[in-house]
Amino acid sequence: MEATAFKSGIVIAQVNEWVDQVPRVDIPGDWVDFVVLSPKPNVIEPLFTRDPAQISEIQVLMAMMAIKGIYSEYGVQRLNHGIGFDTAAIELLLPTYAESLGLKGKIGSHWALNPHPALIPAIEAGWVRSVHSFGSELGMENYVRARPDVFFTGPDGSLRSNRAMCQAAGHYACDMFIGSTLQIDLQGHSSTATAGRIAGFGGAPNMGADARGRRHATPAWLKAGAQARQGRSGVHAMPRGQKLVVQMVETFREHMQPAFVETLDAWKLAEQAKMDIPPVMIYGDDVTHILTEEGIANLLLCRSDEEREQAIRGVAGYTPIGLGRDRRVVENLRDRGIILRAEDLGIDKRDATRSLLAARTMRDLVRASGGLYDPPKRFRNW
Amino acid sequence: MEATAFKSGIVIAQVNEWVDQVPRVDIPGDWVDFVVLSPKPNVIEPLFTRDPAQISEIQVLMAMMAIKGIYSEYGVQRLNHGIGFDTAAIELLLPTYAESLGLKGKIGSHWALNPHPALIPAIEAGWVRSVHSFGSELGMENYVRARPDVFFTGPDGSLRSNRAMCQAAGHYACDMFIGSTLQIDLQGHSSTATAGRIAGFGGAPNMGADARGRRHATPAWLKAGAQARQGRSGVHAMPRGQKLVVQMVETFREHMQPAFVETLDAWKLAEQAKMDIPPVMIYGDDVTHILTEEGIANLLLCRSDEEREQAIRGVAGYTPIGLGRDRRVVENLRDRGIILRAEDLGIDKRDATRSLLAARTMRDLVRASGGLYDPPKRFRNW
Repeated sequence: MEATAFKSGIVIAQVNEWVDQVPRVDIPGDWVDFVVLSPKPNVIEPLFTRDPAQISEIQVLMAMMAIKGIYSEYGVQRLNHGIGFDTAAIELLLPTYAESLGLKGKIGSHWALNPHPALIPAIEAGWVRSVHSFGSELGMENYVRARPDVFFTGPDGSLRSNRAMCQAAGHYACDMFIGSTLQIDLQGHSSTATAGRIAGFGGAPNMGADARGRRHATPAWLKAGAQARQGRSGVHAMPRGQKLVVQMVETFREHMQPAFVETLDAWKLAEQAKMDIPPVMIYGDDVTHILTEEGIANLLLCRSDEEREQAIRGVAGYTPIGLGRDRRVVENLRDRGIILRAEDLGIDKRDATRSLLAARTMRDLVRASGGLYDPPKRFRNW
Repeated sequence: MEATAFKSGIVIAQVNEWVDQVPRVDIPGDWVDFVVLSPKPNVIEPLFTRDPAQISEIQVLMAMMAIKGIYSEYGVQRLNHGIGFDTAAIELLLPTYAESLGLKGKIGSHWALNPHPALIPAIEAGWVRSVHSFGSELGMENYVRARPDVFFTGPDGSLRSNRAMCQAAGHYACDMFIGSTLQIDLQGHSSTATAGRIAGFGGAPNMGADARGRRHATPAWLKAGAQARQGRSGVHAMPRGQKLVVQMVETFREHMQPAFVETLDAWKLAEQAKMDIPPVMIYGDDVTHILTEEGIANLLLCRSDEEREQAIRGVAGYTPIGLGRDRRVVENLRDRGIILRAEDLGIDKRDATRSLLAARTMRDLVRASGGLYDPPKRFRNW
């Protein structure tokens, strides 16, 4: 809007109601050229709401590994979560499993995140100091209003989100991005552009890329950078931090499609659509960890393309990629801590039950919010 | 301001004048808690004004090499310039030297740049389609007002700058950053933090870093990325674009201090100030070209730390670093186009005279602006 208003463009605002006075100015009136009154409210989809009832025990296990093997290991305080059930599980394990590990105050304090309902229990348990948001989420209005200590709100009490600023925070301020994908190849490149299903990348390319212009240091950033540079010479010997970029996927996705592939569909799509280069969501050289139900592959510690490939095969389970592993090399990577299994992290898989979730239903989330969270109808099944 | 206003902070505005109505709203009044009337105007320094009279013939030569060896070579349309005389020389050669090479319309059309007076001749000659600015520049007010086709101005006619948005454009939208530094080491790391003189980095770390979250393609970005990946395997075989990051320095800076050093002073400063890591302005792995009066070193094409070191020595002139070159390796790099001399670019050094500058004095700039540019007093020597 600003770019349009200040580069001789025409700004048209569609509104549902004319009022004498707005409760707060977000966009100054003199930036707007025309106002159109519309009888129908804008449709807003609840994009970031995940029903805890849909979270599987495999996802609980993966969330436990993420918390113990990555969040705790690096002391990740500032982060962004993707929108899937995998990261919703992590949000719901903070006040339970992570609390039992003594991690409160040590991880997950500052977030670049939309107002995820799944974060309510962690906020109420005092885990979260700040959430800056790209946009809002349906049903979270009253809850956000009640927690101006955590969310960015105006003097009128409602949320002030800012997509561009939150992307900047996600890129530069965050120590970690963790999200999911549909396909990962043997070099660690991943894409949600698959044959027959072109899903958008959202903010993943921006947040899931090392912010090489960053100059402020935090323990998580320094540790990731030091691991990547350990034992290296020449241009890579200069100490520098690095962002943690974690891809969290089950080895098989829906319809038993393997998440690990020899060649990304992105190559074929690029050809069909005459793109200059394949539409990769997150490049392998920016990914630091791949986490599956079989374990964590720490790519920061890999020192050759061969090691990287075997580390990826080593967590790819029963997919053809996983079955193609060199067992001896994978065991060596495990001995060196490049591959971590649940048992290496001291996690007993039998503990990975849904009972660890701080909320197991939408109703639990409403209860945790003190009745302030008002889920959209489709999520109300009680 | 927005972060303060919307996170329960207190916003205090210092103003010089109360008026009944402002010509335009840049900051809504309800974001401001207190207004303090101050009798003295805020001091604004003309930080981006470079007197063309101070540009040397060496700088003209370097600017010619930049234009022919980099701008033209990659077809750089979207870019940011540093604030020194080196890049001011380039701005002043666009409507003369670059025009004579037939480059109008092929380079330098879109800029993330403060309103540099040195860009006036190029704007007036029709080279520039758009300039988005971080901030303003003293004396440029009336000129900017007269060119809303180029600058971002409001309905009232005056400049709308936006530091954060311009940094985002500088990071993501620009194909090239070109600037200067005080010290470069053998790996290509550079810093303006030198013993006894800690200059700020400005936006260089942000703009002089590969924007790894970028996904839109331009010819310049694709060519730089292809050069960096030429003949590589594994994770680096995936096609990807790359930002051009050019360091433009004379081999000796003021007081005959060599710009090329074995070890950056940043290491000592980090120790003294107990910093976690040395304060590097631009990291060697983000730099693509180093340009001196001796030539251009294209680091994108280097395939080992040894090649990189010799490429840097090969343009370091008579500094100890330059004298330490392996002549045979440097000649080999030159044969492979990794090092380019003026003569390799078809530039006759005798042509590098100040007469090529589109403006040779401040008065010339005023004249080029049709009298609209009003330089601060200290720059008025006629």
